[in-house]
Amino acid sequence: MSLENEIAAMLAQARGAARKLALASTEQKNAALAALAAMIRGSKSVILGANRIDLERARGSRLARAFIERLALTDDRIEAIARGVTEVAALPDPVGATIDTWERPNGLRIEKRRVPIGLIAVIYESRPNVTVDAAALCLKAGNAVVLRGGKEALASNACLAGLVASGLNEAGLPAAAATFIDNSDREVVQILKRHPDLIDLIIPRGGNALKAALEGSSVPLLPHFDGICHTYVDAAADLKMAEEICINAKCSRPSVCNAMEALLVHRAAAEKFLPALAARMKKAGVEIRGDERVRALIRDAKPATPGDWDAEYLDLILAIKVVDSLDEAIAFIERHGSHLADAIVTRDASAAARFQHEVDSATVYVNASTRFTDGYEFGFGAETGISTNRLHARGPMGLAELTTYKYVIHGSGQVRG
Amino acid sequence: MSLENEIAAMLAQARGAARKLALASTEQKNAALAALAAMIRGSKSVILGANRIDLERARGSRLARAFIERLALTDDRIEAIARGVTEVAALPDPVGATIDTWERPNGLRIEKRRVPIGLIAVIYESRPNVTVDAAALCLKAGNAVVLRGGKEALASNACLAGLVASGLNEAGLPAAAATFIDNSDREVVQILKRHPDLIDLIIPRGGNALKAALEGSSVPLLPHFDGICHTYVDAAADLKMAEEICINAKCSRPSVCNAMEALLVHRAAAEKFLPALAARMKKAGVEIRGDERVRALIRDAKPATPGDWDAEYLDLILAIKVVDSLDEAIAFIERHGSHLADAIVTRDASAAARFQHEVDSATVYVNASTRFTDGYEFGFGAETGISTNRLHARGPMGLAELTTYKYVIHGSGQVRG
Repeated sequence: MSLENEIAAMLAQARGAARKLALASTEQKNAALAALAAMIRGSKSVILGANRIDLERARGSRLARAFIERLALTDDRIEAIARGVTEVAALPDPVGATIDTWERPNGLRIEKRRVPIGLIAVIYESRPNVTVDAAALCLKAGNAVVLRGGKEALASNACLAGLVASGLNEAGLPAAAATFIDNSDREVVQILKRHPDLIDLIIPRGGNALKAALEGSSVPLLPHFDGICHTYVDAAADLKMAEEICINAKCSRPSVCNAMEALLVHRAAAEKFLPALAARMKKAGVEIRGDERVRALIRDAKPATPGDWDAEYLDLILAIKVVDSLDEAIAFIERHGSHLADAIVTRDASAAARFQHEVDSATVYVNASTRFTDGYEFGFGAETGISTNRLHARGPMGLAELTTYKYVIHGSGQVRG
Repeated sequence: MSLENEIAAMLAQARGAARKLALASTEQKNAALAALAAMIRGSKSVILGANRIDLERARGSRLARAFIERLALTDDRIEAIARGVTEVAALPDPVGATIDTWERPNGLRIEKRRVPIGLIAVIYESRPNVTVDAAALCLKAGNAVVLRGGKEALASNACLAGLVASGLNEAGLPAAAATFIDNSDREVVQILKRHPDLIDLIIPRGGNALKAALEGSSVPLLPHFDGICHTYVDAAADLKMAEEICINAKCSRPSVCNAMEALLVHRAAAEKFLPALAARMKKAGVEIRGDERVRALIRDAKPATPGDWDAEYLDLILAIKVVDSLDEAIAFIERHGSHLADAIVTRDASAAARFQHEVDSATVYVNASTRFTDGYEFGFGAETGISTNRLHARGPMGLAELTTYKYVIHGSGQVRG
């Protein structure tokens, strides 16, 4: 059987299972999740064994330490994965909720009701926990899911996906509702993107290579790509607050999409603000690249090249620029940002309002760190990822963003005039 | 200049204008719409002159009468177009509305705020009124719009688009916020779909040829395609009501997406229901194609071929099938329908509830005609089209569906732990 046919057959099965998941009761879905959590807890040694296969292969291929660190599982991490499943089971079921309801003058009663999206394909990096997280969230929202993880985690993912399937089975739900693609051929992604007949949505998590691979997808995409986030320290900023926010936005987790990549400082604040900030950044191991005015204030800053203003370092590097006005800051962010998360630090309410109105990003902060762009931090109760899409779901996602809606209309014989 | 470069230059201008539209005040947008309505009313003879060019060309190419009928403008139709613009101006501005707001335990105040989508390309059939309708709705929702209409209406569209541009100018808004593509080369659509850097969304209105042309679009699509809608007459139906609903769903406007294409009748109702219905359908000029059980009851019904169950007639033709159960009806609709609008006629509340729960369509009716699937009929105050998409917007669209959202977050120095 060709790869195309093989994948299409898996998708067709998953599609059939999607229909069953969409109609499953909350109790049934929660039973599957409870069974899954129990099985994860009861299978730690099996999971660790599978993970060892991946780790040995990874060490053999001299992958970066941070990469291997994300790939590795431990007893604690497995427990955290199981706990995550239990938390998802405890969340309210979004499916079937009434979003809105109204009556028309002709007596038609219209209800806008939340329903599952259908079959979602999640394409993700080599992080085994995502296999379980993504499956649990999709299933809770009534969706079937096709899982395609990074090849370096193949053994761990296959092991965990097997447990998801068993959990579904135990609750009387079709195992195909969580279909793991146990094939690391790059062509698989190409096949997935050609099947809008079977897949309703692809959620790709990753960087530019995946972005390029999905170019021209016939299946709608809801990407979770990276971000170029800015912080702008206004002339009227509380500089101590600005310092804490900048350190947090840059250093608390530089490899994630909501970390600050570039800092803009109003010229009226630069002289007082930058040297102190630079000292702390230096201590935290951050390399600073600045324009001329920055380098006049931070002696060991490297000169920023034009490429730095569009760079997504995902690392302990920070580009800094001095600007002459709020307008310049906004225009710069519009031009160079990725429209995910940007912040202003200011005590000037009208500058804050203008920034939030005019910066066209998924999340726009006044006096807070861009690192809050996250489902948990927003109070959504789950980490369903951070959409870099503009439509359907933008920014931090909750379970509701893994659903769509339909209108159910109650009549008593109405016809259209 | 190559066509590619020419279109890209137009798009870049429209993109710049989108930013201005997004930040324009309600008053400014309404002023542009008021100016447009006035100019349409004051330019009737010019518009009719342009329309005559299209009509003469259309008559020369022996296009179908219904086609020419949709292309033709009259004094009354032009007045209706102007009135439509005035109505859109009177609608509340969706931009800037607070969709939701909450506070986190750490004191962060999060506001979900409605914002424009950006630059929307509308690709539409040869109906000059759509030039104005689509522009007015997109502009009111703060979006810039690129208009690409059917080539048969080129002169009429260009004339009307010129008035839209003048209306924008008069209100101090950039004319490029409504950019009409005065070029009927098919390659234009191919260029549009390759520009996700400039276009945020393509709304295609039309049939299968346009669907095929947009296959593999890199720009997200929100299609307004056609529909295969079903009505199911249950064993427990009020048959007089069912008759009125079926006649309305099939005959009131057979060429539109929410018209019924196939009728399913429970075997317990068939004998009493079908002969009387057939007599009325016949009077209305409807050709009936049925399965064997239907043909036993409607003598002059043509035999339905397998293709009939997936046909989108958009014409006075109706496929009828007798089913043995509610389950069979639901399974049939899931298999053959287009998930846009389906109805059940029944007095059995549990059958009604199951149908509305299990039929996965944008609009699911109990005891009403599928013809209500329409923005006006839903009370949205405007005809922004009927989305056949599953994500972002599904079914009848209002102005809100031409927007997206962002989160604005108010802090007081919060950093993430």
